[in-house]
Formats: sequence, structure tokens, C-alpha cells
Amino acid sequence: MTFIKTPVKGMRDITPQEMELREYVLSLMQETYQTFGFERIQTPAVEHIENLTNKQGGDNEKLIFKILKRGEKLSIEETTSENDLVDSGLRYDLTVPLTRFYASNMNNLPTPFRTFQTGNVYRADRPQKGRYREFMQCDLDMFGEKTNLAEIELITAVITFLKKLDFKGFTIKINDRRILLSMIEKVGFPSEEADSILISLDKLDKIGLSGVREELLENNHEPEKVEKYLSFFEKKLTIDEFCKQFEMDEKIVKNLEEIMNSVSDITGATLEFEPTLVRGMGYYTGPIFEIHVEDLSSAIGGGGRYDKMVEKYAGVPTAACGFSIGFERLILLLNERGFEIPRESKKLAIILNHEDQKEEALKYAQQEREKGSIVKVVNRSKNLKHQIDVLEESGYTWKEW
Amino acid sequence: MTFIKTPVKGMRDITPQEMELREYVLSLMQETYQTFGFERIQTPAVEHIENLTNKQGGDNEKLIFKILKRGEKLSIEETTSENDLVDSGLRYDLTVPLTRFYASNMNNLPTPFRTFQTGNVYRADRPQKGRYREFMQCDLDMFGEKTNLAEIELITAVITFLKKLDFKGFTIKINDRRILLSMIEKVGFPSEEADSILISLDKLDKIGLSGVREELLENNHEPEKVEKYLSFFEKKLTIDEFCKQFEMDEKIVKNLEEIMNSVSDITGATLEFEPTLVRGMGYYTGPIFEIHVEDLSSAIGGGGRYDKMVEKYAGVPTAACGFSIGFERLILLLNERGFEIPRESKKLAIILNHEDQKEEALKYAQQEREKGSIVKVVNRSKNLKHQIDVLEESGYTWKEW
Repeated sequence: MTFIKTPVKGMRDITPQEMELREYVLSLMQETYQTFGFERIQTPAVEHIENLTNKQGGDNEKLIFKILKRGEKLSIEETTSENDLVDSGLRYDLTVPLTRFYASNMNNLPTPFRTFQTGNVYRADRPQKGRYREFMQCDLDMFGEKTNLAEIELITAVITFLKKLDFKGFTIKINDRRILLSMIEKVGFPSEEADSILISLDKLDKIGLSGVREELLENNHEPEKVEKYLSFFEKKLTIDEFCKQFEMDEKIVKNLEEIMNSVSDITGATLEFEPTLVRGMGYYTGPIFEIHVEDLSSAIGGGGRYDKMVEKYAGVPTAACGFSIGFERLILLLNERGFEIPRESKKLAIILNHEDQKEEALKYAQQEREKGSIVKVVNRSKNLKHQIDVLEESGYTWKEW
Repeated sequence: MTFIKTPVKGMRDITPQEMELREYVLSLMQETYQTFGFERIQTPAVEHIENLTNKQGGDNEKLIFKILKRGEKLSIEETTSENDLVDSGLRYDLTVPLTRFYASNMNNLPTPFRTFQTGNVYRADRPQKGRYREFMQCDLDMFGEKTNLAEIELITAVITFLKKLDFKGFTIKINDRRILLSMIEKVGFPSEEADSILISLDKLDKIGLSGVREELLENNHEPEKVEKYLSFFEKKLTIDEFCKQFEMDEKIVKNLEEIMNSVSDITGATLEFEPTLVRGMGYYTGPIFEIHVEDLSSAIGGGGRYDKMVEKYAGVPTAACGFSIGFERLILLLNERGFEIPRESKKLAIILNHEDQKEEALKYAQQEREKGSIVKVVNRSKNLKHQIDVLEESGYTWKEW
């Protein structure tokens, strides 16, 4: 009989030790988000292939695990392409199913709708260190709130969670998609080039100003305009100073300032205006934000306002704003930082020496459990010393019975 | 753009109201199992197609969602059968991945290994009321414990959980696979017919003794033997009385009695010897058990000892015993019984009247959250009365600001 012991390529088993930290972080997150009135929902991991391949998912659409049709619907003889074979696939993010959920249930949901979703998503990416083909996403979203109350409550919730976790050394960087687009317009770049220019700017962290310059010139942008554009990013400026340079719409600036001041006042956290912050997804329409830490080059979370997407998918204009934590990166970082879970429960192993006293030992164990202890009853093994060593290593005290 | 609003066929979205109960039950379960020293693990939802189709999964193997190969590995031109197209599939239970997990990690796991796994599983079954193609399983297992300490701790843990849930009116029915096989042997049925005979006996609940008789006769068993066999099940007997009738091995009887007495002593729950209890899966090798309630015809959980399976899969002889809760059925039943989640948190909505006082309202909200309340800050809507009605319906008190 063929039996393969390792997980499928790019996926992994999660051991009890790893699981303990994940569960701790998740339940702290849930507990925190809940106090902000965010309600948890769940959507299937399997999604219509049509919804996954409608060109809104960018590169993720190339990484879909597709599911074969079943029964009579599958006809291999008549198959000419992949599309004939599949009817569904595994979701590559939680945003597509959330939007579908909202479109399907909006009449029964409060406005604004505050929601929280955690779940595994799947991408057939090239496996590499710390990146898996099945990984957890944790999305916080608010639908139907047009004002910056959405941004403020979302960012405050995420910061409150990170503080409860005693997570140190993070900065929230913030920008506005409209500032990015306005700059491109004011410099005089053709507006249809905006996406491509922003893709170059997004690499600034990795390739520096000179690298971005090179890319823009390679893409045949006029050297003068390129210089003017890049000059905006040379000096670290406040949002006010920055926006005055090219007469940015005051409403947009004031909105962003209000978010920054408000969140900073409430949480005490550092928020930083970052005019080079792009965020990959083109669907953002307003403020965008990311969580940065010194010990990791990529962000460990981010989000923004995406007021047009729900309408595009579901036909009904709906303001939307979201904030997603990169759960796997956060766990990685906590491990690297030597994070320890605050423990409360006593762990006790009762080692049974006498079969005829099992009953009493079991009763005693049950009483201790009722007081909140973790208790396991185990038979004495031949090598008692080894048995005790293993128990102690995993934090158990023990008692012979 | 094509966008399908409903979930894929047979699967479902879970709303905040449903989710609240599910989360409550799950965390109570986890909390309880943890006090017994069971440690949580997680395995991928995607499994090697070889592991899913090796004839150990019975009918479930006909219901697999199969995943298409990707990239160069997929060659539609050279395809002659489904097998050429797929390399993996969605798991149909948690036992296959658990066994694979154990085979892969056993050197780093304690003996005995107490583990707890929850996760969605997938079966392309005909959709029907209360049965979904994606559903949650909750499995408790102990590997490496040969004595009935495994059965006792597993059953005690499950009962302790049900009691914490204040779940009433359940009985644990218990039997032993070896008693079932021994009876067939003593009656004189051919041993190779055992599986088929047990499939008939398993239907006793639905078709009664006369129905089982009919089926056995249709399968060409000698009428005398059929009568003798069925006579065992006519009267309700104690395990002692029952087993004396056909000189059952005393060790097996004593083992079962010990489990029943011990669990009953510790938990106060009712355990009942049920000689007609079969449980579908052929992999059981010793005691088997199920949770029955009066208001549902099928069991809401069950398990047993399956000492041969790990060896079959993983090559290493390993005692194993498990108990699985039918999570979806339990939730269904709790809803039908009008179960209410014990609430502790105050829910407060702050309705913003004045934009210039937002800051203060947000600060007040944060203070209340720190005290454990659920607080959301919302802008006053045009129809205040409706806004308040909706808030009150979902359990919120409110305050204008």
C-alpha cells in the first residue's frame, strides 16, 4: 500500500508546540477585535472558479489550486483546455469570499458591518523558507462606513491587539492612494502609466531611489519628469510640508492627519506619513497603511480603503475598509524574538504504579482538572527515568501513585 | 464580469450569529480537552491523492474533491483517465492526516501521544438538510497506550466537555468489536462474511430485528444460524449476562466493565452496554462507543480502539484509540434545544452626533473596552430610530455623544 508520510509539497503539519503559540495569538486577536464589535464569519475554502479568475486577483490568479469536476460533468474525451475540467478552486485570499458573503447576505447585516475572518488560503507558489502553499490570513473589515471612523477603529483595533501581545518596535506607515495618483498627474506623467509607475515606486525599499530612477527611464519616461517626481521623495517631510509642494487637495490631507492624530492619541502608538507607501493591490481608493518592524524587511500587516470593489463584484456601491495581519510572519517574528506564552495552568502527570489504584488516581486527576490544572494519567513505563525526563521537559510536574 | 454570489454547491457561509455559538462550543471543547493534556495539532486540508485512495477510506473515497496538477505536470493531450490529471485532494476525514502526521513526527512526540485536532473536511456528497460538503470534525486521539487508560481518559474528557456545556440527556453506548466477531464465530457463520453480517446488524436501529433477519436470509445465511444469532439481541441484558450466553473471553468482558464503571464513577454519566453497536468503520479492533441522545436518531459522536491502522499506514505497530464529536450535529441540536450562550460582556454603541467630539467618544470607547466591554463607535444615521432598533435587537445598549 502506498502511503506518503510527508505533507504535500509546500504545505506543512503544525506540531503541538507551534500550535500553542498560534492558538494563543489567535485567541488574543479574537478577544481584542471582539471588544471593537467586530463579528466573526466563516466562508468555504472552496470558491467558484469564476470568482477566482475574474482578473481582480492579479498574480494570485496564476497560483490557484483548481478542483476537478465530478461525476457526469467531467468528460475527459471532450476536454480541450483546463477550463473544461474544473468548476471550483481553493481561495487565494479572504477578500473574494468576504465580498461574496456580503453580496449574498447584506440585507441581514447591520450597516456598517464590522467583520473579522480568519482562515487558511492557498497559493501554488514556489515553496521557500517561511512561505507556504497553505497559510493563515486574519482579516478585519468594515463595510458601509464612508468616514474615517472606519480607518480609525480598524487601526486602533490592530494596535490594541499588538499591545496586548506586548509586541514592541512597530510603526504604522500611512499614505493615501489619491496622493500617489495626484503626484503622478501633477508631474505630468500620462495617467494610463500610473500603475506601472507605482509598481516601480513600490520597489524603493529594495532598489533605492537610483533603482527606481533607472526603471522609470527604461520605461521611456521623460528624464525631467522623472527627476521632478523623485525629488519629492528625497527628504523626509511632514504630511503638511509634503503636500504643500504640489498643492494637494486639503480634504485628503486633513483626513489623513485626523486618522494619524486620533489613533496616536488613543493608543500612544507611532504613526508615520510615508509618501512612498504603495501597497501592491490596485483596488485601493483612499488611505492605505502598513505595520513595519525593524527586524523584518517586509510589512507584517496592512490594509486600506477600497470603496469601489464591492460594487464591482456585487453591483451595490459600498464603502469598504480593511486591515489584514500577516499571521505567519507575526508568528515567525515572535519565535525569533523568543516570545513566551504567559502560562497560568499547572501541568501535572500522575504516574500509575499500581493497577488496582487506577480508580483513585483518575478521580484525583478529575478534581485537579476542575480546579483548572492540566492533568494526564499515564502508566509507569519501564524506563521511569526517561519517562520523567520527557515529562519535565514539556513542563509537567509529576506524582507517582 | 461574472460573479456568483452564492457559495459553491453544498457548502455554506457562516453568519456572525451562527459563528458565535460555534466559537463558544469549540473553545469550551478545547479548554476541556486541554486539561486532560491533549495537545492540538493541525494538518493541511490538502492531502496526497495516494493517501486518500488506498482503499482504507471506504465509501468516502468516492466523494473526494480532487485537485488538478499544475504547470508542466499537467498534460491534457496525454490524459486518458482522471488519475493522470490529479496529484492531491481535499481530506475526507482527520484520521488519514493524523496518521500521516504521527508517522512523520513520531520520534519527536511523547508516548503516549494525546492529541486533539479540529478542522474542516470535504465530501462531495449529495447535499441534503444539515449535511454539507465542507464540515467541521473534532477528533481526540491517544496513540501508544495499550491499556484501557486510553478509553477511560478519552470518554471522560468528552463527557466532561458535554457537562460543561450543560448538555443534557445523553447516553454513552459501548461494545467491543471482538464481541461482535466472536458472536459471528460462535454462531457458525463463515468468518469471511463477518463484515457483511455486521453491515446488516448496523441497520437494526432503522429496520428492526425483522429487517435484519430478512437481509441475512437474502444473503443466503442458514435460517437456523440467523435465528440463533438474532436471539442474542432479543432481550436487554447486562454485559455479564450477555457474554455468559456464548462464553465470551473474560478479559474482554472485564476490560469493558472496567471502562464503564470507571468513567461512570468519575463523571456520573450513564454508560450502557449495547451488543448491537457496530460503528461503520472496519478498522476498529477493540472497544467501540457512541454518544446517543433521545432527540436525534443518529449518534452525535463516537470512536473506539484501532490498534492496527497506524501500522498499516506507517509500518510501526502502535496502539491507538480515538473519540470524535459530530460537531455539526451537536450545533444543530443545541440550536434546536434553544441553547443560549452564557454572556458576560456588556455591549455598547456610541452614536456620534457631533463630528468635533469624535476624539473624546473614541477615547471613552477605548476605556470601556479595556474594562472588557464590547464597544462600537458609529456615526448617527439619518433614521436614528431604525439605527437604535437594529442595535437593540443585536443586544447593544447605546449612548448618544
